[in-house]
Amino acid sequence: MGNVLSGKAPAEGVLQNAKKIAGKMMKKPHLAVVIVGHDPASELYVKKKLEKAESIGVRTTLRRIGENADEKELLDLVSQLNKDQDIDGFIVQSPIPKHMDYTKVVEKIDPKKDVDGWTSTNIGRMFLGISETFMPATPMGIMKLLDYYKVDIAGKDVTVIGRGNVVGKPIAFMMLQRDATVTICHSKTKDLASHTRNADIIIAAAGVPNLLKADMVKEGAYIVDVGTTRVGDKTVGDVDYPNVIKKAHCTPVPGGVGPMTVAMLISNVIEAALRRA
Amino acid sequence: MGNVLSGKAPAEGVLQNAKKIAGKMMKKPHLAVVIVGHDPASELYVKKKLEKAESIGVRTTLRRIGENADEKELLDLVSQLNKDQDIDGFIVQSPIPKHMDYTKVVEKIDPKKDVDGWTSTNIGRMFLGISETFMPATPMGIMKLLDYYKVDIAGKDVTVIGRGNVVGKPIAFMMLQRDATVTICHSKTKDLASHTRNADIIIAAAGVPNLLKADMVKEGAYIVDVGTTRVGDKTVGDVDYPNVIKKAHCTPVPGGVGPMTVAMLISNVIEAALRRA
Repeated sequence: MGNVLSGKAPAEGVLQNAKKIAGKMMKKPHLAVVIVGHDPASELYVKKKLEKAESIGVRTTLRRIGENADEKELLDLVSQLNKDQDIDGFIVQSPIPKHMDYTKVVEKIDPKKDVDGWTSTNIGRMFLGISETFMPATPMGIMKLLDYYKVDIAGKDVTVIGRGNVVGKPIAFMMLQRDATVTICHSKTKDLASHTRNADIIIAAAGVPNLLKADMVKEGAYIVDVGTTRVGDKTVGDVDYPNVIKKAHCTPVPGGVGPMTVAMLISNVIEAALRRA
Repeated sequence: MGNVLSGKAPAEGVLQNAKKIAGKMMKKPHLAVVIVGHDPASELYVKKKLEKAESIGVRTTLRRIGENADEKELLDLVSQLNKDQDIDGFIVQSPIPKHMDYTKVVEKIDPKKDVDGWTSTNIGRMFLGISETFMPATPMGIMKLLDYYKVDIAGKDVTVIGRGNVVGKPIAFMMLQRDATVTICHSKTKDLASHTRNADIIIAAAGVPNLLKADMVKEGAYIVDVGTTRVGDKTVGDVDYPNVIKKAHCTPVPGGVGPMTVAMLISNVIEAALRRA
């Protein structure tokens, strides 16, 4: 039987540390979140981020743009937030309506306020190992979670399933930087099991429910489930959890990576405020 | 017996195409190269780049900084080249003396003139798949070489040995973007052979002579040798070529990736000039 790698305790640790720092600052760190349209999952997720941030001592502002607004309106709001001396960091919650170009919008964010760590400048800095960057919250949260459970990373074989810009690619980098041997699989991989069966650590970020089954993982491996597929009113991961947990250590969904992501975002906001001060 | 994957013919193809475009431009594209100190290998390599560029119809300028100059002198030269309206692109040849910070110097280069593709902005854009970037010359040259020999990449298992910023990390990205399943190995990998034995394509960029031996590669695999270790007055690759070529297709050293790198650099200079026009 594997251990349940809950994100709750490590997230709480990150948040308590953030709270301590925020409490010592003369001006409260200030996070703004932009929502475009009315995606119900986004609404819920943003609400969670804002409530958690406030509870830590971070001021928050929610800015809304209508679903039918044109892209220019959103770009103008980004420029305004870039200039606003009171805002330390902000994010544009994805998804945004299809008639707007998300990459273009993100690229407009001042890298100093890009607390999601998604601008090309911050990604490039991460790649080069330059410290004045913001690391994307989810992959950074995964690293913190594994560190909390004292999982060795150096020299280990890590398989990442998924190659997205938000999780797959950056977590592959971070693992490399920590001396893991990294394999990146995705929908075009011809034999996924051949790449997971011997892995010491698996990061499942494909968004395909039940993709990773017990016969595809090694006894005692560490599995991080980043899948968040909405099935009815439930969020399900990529891992066949009830069977995988019998032989490997695994994060649950929900309650695994999710709380870590929120905690790391808040941590980035405080970092942004500290750098400006 | 495998095929010799010479870089000469594909490099010539890239260069002839570059020459055709350069010949149609009102103003010759202009490349500047900065050398700091007197590293003999660098001198030779830069000489080759400049001669080849001139032969294609690219104007070149060599700027020298003394070995004992301070970093500020180099940074000032970079600023000057950024502003110089006549220069379309430039590179600072590595290595530079140890008392200067190479990353800091590269980060000062205007991304629009960064024809080596090494600034964080251009790397971040590559990561995000934004087209207005310059791809680093060596990994781009590898892709072109494999395309020339009609090597399938989508769905193939590719193992990259080496995780440097110049070859290992960017080639891993480019392979991912072309739908390969990618494994990145390095000096801390516990069992290198287990990651190379089943690979369809291997990119060896470790800088360790004779690292990749025949029993570590699959029959009929494609091997690209990016190693350039100086042994006496010879440059040797990472592959045990005489034995590996008996069962797999392999680039020679020299005459494999080297000519491709020079060709891609020149191609980037022309691209830089076209974008400015």
